[in-house]
Amino acid sequence: MSSHDVSQAAAEAAARTQDAVDSRRLNDAIAELAGFGGRSDGGVARETLTPLDVEARRHLVGRARALGCSVSVDTCGNLFFRRAGQQADLPPVLTGSHIDTQPVGGKLDGAYGVIAGLEVIQALNDAGVATRRPVEVVVWTNEEGSRFGPGAMGSSAFAQPERLAGYRASRDAEGVTFGDALDATLAQMPDVERTALGHAVDSCVELHIEQGPVLEDANVPLGVVTGIQSVRWFSVTVSGAAAHAGTTPMEVRRDAMRAALELAGHLYARGDAMRASGLRMTLGRWRVGPNSINTIPGEVEFTVDARCVDEDVLTRFEAALRDAVASLDAADGFTAQVQSLFTRATTHFPLPMTALVERACARASANAGEGAPIEVTSGAFHDAMYVADLCPTAMIFVPSRSGISHNAAEYTEPHQLYLGAQALAYVVAELACR
Amino acid sequence: MSSHDVSQAAAEAAARTQDAVDSRRLNDAIAELAGFGGRSDGGVARETLTPLDVEARRHLVGRARALGCSVSVDTCGNLFFRRAGQQADLPPVLTGSHIDTQPVGGKLDGAYGVIAGLEVIQALNDAGVATRRPVEVVVWTNEEGSRFGPGAMGSSAFAQPERLAGYRASRDAEGVTFGDALDATLAQMPDVERTALGHAVDSCVELHIEQGPVLEDANVPLGVVTGIQSVRWFSVTVSGAAAHAGTTPMEVRRDAMRAALELAGHLYARGDAMRASGLRMTLGRWRVGPNSINTIPGEVEFTVDARCVDEDVLTRFEAALRDAVASLDAADGFTAQVQSLFTRATTHFPLPMTALVERACARASANAGEGAPIEVTSGAFHDAMYVADLCPTAMIFVPSRSGISHNAAEYTEPHQLYLGAQALAYVVAELACR
Repeated sequence: MSSHDVSQAAAEAAARTQDAVDSRRLNDAIAELAGFGGRSDGGVARETLTPLDVEARRHLVGRARALGCSVSVDTCGNLFFRRAGQQADLPPVLTGSHIDTQPVGGKLDGAYGVIAGLEVIQALNDAGVATRRPVEVVVWTNEEGSRFGPGAMGSSAFAQPERLAGYRASRDAEGVTFGDALDATLAQMPDVERTALGHAVDSCVELHIEQGPVLEDANVPLGVVTGIQSVRWFSVTVSGAAAHAGTTPMEVRRDAMRAALELAGHLYARGDAMRASGLRMTLGRWRVGPNSINTIPGEVEFTVDARCVDEDVLTRFEAALRDAVASLDAADGFTAQVQSLFTRATTHFPLPMTALVERACARASANAGEGAPIEVTSGAFHDAMYVADLCPTAMIFVPSRSGISHNAAEYTEPHQLYLGAQALAYVVAELACR
Repeated sequence: MSSHDVSQAAAEAAARTQDAVDSRRLNDAIAELAGFGGRSDGGVARETLTPLDVEARRHLVGRARALGCSVSVDTCGNLFFRRAGQQADLPPVLTGSHIDTQPVGGKLDGAYGVIAGLEVIQALNDAGVATRRPVEVVVWTNEEGSRFGPGAMGSSAFAQPERLAGYRASRDAEGVTFGDALDATLAQMPDVERTALGHAVDSCVELHIEQGPVLEDANVPLGVVTGIQSVRWFSVTVSGAAAHAGTTPMEVRRDAMRAALELAGHLYARGDAMRASGLRMTLGRWRVGPNSINTIPGEVEFTVDARCVDEDVLTRFEAALRDAVASLDAADGFTAQVQSLFTRATTHFPLPMTALVERACARASANAGEGAPIEVTSGAFHDAMYVADLCPTAMIFVPSRSGISHNAAEYTEPHQLYLGAQALAYVVAELACR
């Protein structure tokens, strides 16, 4: 076949696979997985590598095998469900997400992308599509980072296997290491083939709930994710002098919290001034010392989370932050410092991938009589961010009601979940067929 | 004798006792007590009812007996060292303070008042003064409140014995109850007579370091404490909505910390406006939820400590606080509440007591060629605050270098400590003789 013919055949296979997606089956499978750690309030409590996570993994292994997939697990616990391709030696098309939750999360964050991946395999089977490349559904380990820090351990170790040794030393609140919890989990899957971290991948697409309000506000069911915002995290420390709240006259105080609040007010004002440029700024974590009702605060530490798709905006914000901290540091009686904790550059998904996602979403939406997909950027990190360093990658978003996530109230309408899986099926099938 | 003759004889006995105070002996005894829990940085770590506190108590019991005192302990662990009076049936004149420290405190906070009390007994002995009334040196239990809350348990239970039952249930960070720690301490003092809480007291005077900078700034060694500031403690809670720092656009956020910071800024401005009226305001303890670097704060709680000698100023400040919180509560997307945690009215020491303290301080200062005493108010709580509910009470302050206390760097010059003990000796002797 000519390359035009290959494309044509791939698009036709993609359309047939998309049409074979079953809404009821998808939503039932989501509900079934939510039973592992399900709560009476509708939330799910299934932190990574806990007994519930192991049970959920075994449940998925059984489902994947029933669909004809071979199953493997790598040394970071990432699970791969592989549907064979006509050319076994070609790297697979990857889809999937994670199934671990925050201490209390919803049914959809991560789980949706995994279940939709298995639904795509079922749809490929039902539509009788034989793909050139293998298709793999991945379950990444510890995306949330709530039990063991940092998050996205599985996908980032897949992209850079040398990270794993450090991750293994990470401890949860009970002192258990990630390494020990991982080994215990792997020991409970003796029937699953072991593989090395970081095998070759052709391309990757991740389906996820938006976790923000943009799609809902636009009243469209599908979003083409063009990239993931750049993030810079800082810690700001302000030191004054702790002193007795009763005995210390106001005029001689060096109140670190008062100084920190003025600095924070200045940062919020900067953030407001840069809002139109897309800056998002959060001062989320605060530590006040000695944090006593009758002692003037002597030291305050707070974090700054700044995000934007435009790196230049972040660079200007960081300069303003450093200037403000330096001014306070130069003030009588105070010292102030800023420390960079983490930086991640903007992830731009490549144009051929976003164009394919756009076509897939447009077809699903049009067939359902829904509004055309819009472009969105992801404010949150996702496993796809790390995979994007390895191969052409894309993401598809569906709406989150009221933008709520990491919460038992997380919700997306079943019909929207269905359309998202349809879009995913189209993208995976076309990538695997061409 | 006529009452004039009694007064004349009492003043003469007071002067003789004052002159018998020995600086070297006083400062050596302070250093000796500081050995129980002393640290290489000069600080003392001797929290209440710890093994070190028990050792220190036994040390003081031995010293008091060597001075001819009888020793008793009440059901809250308050120790009393009693020098007999000519009329055994008269209630005693009480002096003393506490020997427990903050987790890391200095050598002087509390300990100075106890050691100076024993020095007064030694001086009465050396000067051959026989007092009409008994003199008791008290060691109050748990003034600091750092191990078991609240503070001033011993003196407040002495003033209101019905408080003890509740105090016994208070737990330290290890889960030990105050009641169990108290019983264990008492069990280690089988040779000490037990008494009921709250025996009759004629009058009371407490000598203490200032813990503030006023005397140092005025360059005088002695302060006549006219009263203890009124205190009102509040807790303010601000609720918004926690949400993802990356996915939530700035314009839809309900950031509880941002709202709390604006409220705090308003309170600081109010505090500045009322500073000339003597208001002291501290926002000392902060709790931010969920306190995560990448989550917009959903709930913030902070405390307000407001103090002033003038109750009217506090009443106006409280009204402004409640107005500001109500305004925020009425704002879209936020709720805000203020809760009163604690209120203590101003303690005014009675004029005859402050006049006596003034005479005592003036004589000691003049003999040393030092500046005349000044009137001060106490910004901190003291055991004397609770005893003032029972009998005529007074306090004497000596300077704290740089106003530093609750800190290993706490320091008062030995000569100033000596003058304070001289002033105390005069007051105790005159009260006990008349």
